[in-house]
Amino acid sequence: MTVTFKDVKADLLDQIARGTLRPGAQMPNETDLAEAYGCARATVNRAMRELAEEGIVERKRKAGTRVRMAPIRQARFSIPIVRDEIEAQGAEYRYALLDRTVQGAPDWLRGRLGLDAGQEVLHVVCMHYADGMPYQHEDRWINPEIVPGVLAADFSVNGPNEWLVAEVPFSDAEISFMAVEAEQGLADHLGCAVDDALFRIERTTWLRGSAITLVRLTYRRGHRMTTQY
Amino acid sequence: MTVTFKDVKADLLDQIARGTLRPGAQMPNETDLAEAYGCARATVNRAMRELAEEGIVERKRKAGTRVRMAPIRQARFSIPIVRDEIEAQGAEYRYALLDRTVQGAPDWLRGRLGLDAGQEVLHVVCMHYADGMPYQHEDRWINPEIVPGVLAADFSVNGPNEWLVAEVPFSDAEISFMAVEAEQGLADHLGCAVDDALFRIERTTWLRGSAITLVRLTYRRGHRMTTQY
Repeated sequence: MTVTFKDVKADLLDQIARGTLRPGAQMPNETDLAEAYGCARATVNRAMRELAEEGIVERKRKAGTRVRMAPIRQARFSIPIVRDEIEAQGAEYRYALLDRTVQGAPDWLRGRLGLDAGQEVLHVVCMHYADGMPYQHEDRWINPEIVPGVLAADFSVNGPNEWLVAEVPFSDAEISFMAVEAEQGLADHLGCAVDDALFRIERTTWLRGSAITLVRLTYRRGHRMTTQY
Repeated sequence: MTVTFKDVKADLLDQIARGTLRPGAQMPNETDLAEAYGCARATVNRAMRELAEEGIVERKRKAGTRVRMAPIRQARFSIPIVRDEIEAQGAEYRYALLDRTVQGAPDWLRGRLGLDAGQEVLHVVCMHYADGMPYQHEDRWINPEIVPGVLAADFSVNGPNEWLVAEVPFSDAEISFMAVEAEQGLADHLGCAVDDALFRIERTTWLRGSAITLVRLTYRRGHRMTTQY
């Protein structure tokens, strides 16, 4: 049986979980661990590197590697296309375009995306349904300077997210999670009362420094976004 | 100049961003890439592995590596201790214990944590302030069967999260993000109106299959949780 980096990582995590290696404790050096596990030093190194990347241990050039006093735990959230998100729940996906306009960028958007005065943007508002019930309201602004083809794209059948994912790579994204009170339009479309608390994702994506799109994805009341870590 | 895996990864990402490598395209094989970059094959392999882990490319045993049609992008959120979160913003942290009781676990909690009937749990409610303003309300349930020392712990000066992080390792966590309407108690403590939309994190942690704690962290109105990816 070959000892893999996953075996080594699991055993070290287990020792930390059992308290054999306590917060602040020095980790054994990699050469000794390799000998103890009967594996290559590179195998131990990869396990250690992942533990460091996950914030379980911290590596310092001179002081060696220690178990973090307060592990920085990171939760990872996959950001799927909403069609995939809905279908993964075994529900039927349906899309509806609510509005599509080309207009001058409002001031708040110009500030957020770094657009020039008078620059036109494409504004698309649409709904995503799961088994016929409102699931997500999408309010999206797209910068046609960066994505010229978008002005000719047809969003009556499929949503702009699917089009963008297929057509336009992005290099950087900023994502925020928040709670908002439903205003009248959102309440109508999502089938909730005005001022109900709704979960919203706001995401901006850039391609090498130029803003592509800013989108607000507001979920039906009661939506939870969950992950294990 | 040594070519590192980061250089290789950045260049491949750039080619994907520029569209030289389009969604669905076959990636060049690692041996050719190593020759082109003038680096070891292991260096290319690590770059490719990270691109795969980040959902940018997909590797199939027979078909080789391709640029994903719809990249699975993952956002990572660090889950810091609230004191660190507040101090990182340059604000002064203050803690206040609101309530501490030992009581039979309510039914909903028994279901969530897999507790036996009649099992007692520690319930701690507290507030975290930033520069004297309400920042986060913490409502926490702790299982003393797994964490016996917690019943003797003093939570009048420091919060239970800091104590747990220092004393009790955890192996698994589930975290959910959601929006809730403020009920009276939350509104009073967070300084908002009843029914305001508030952002909440709910987290359950386990140690090798046994539930340690379930916590609801509710933030002041307007809070956004943001990350780049």
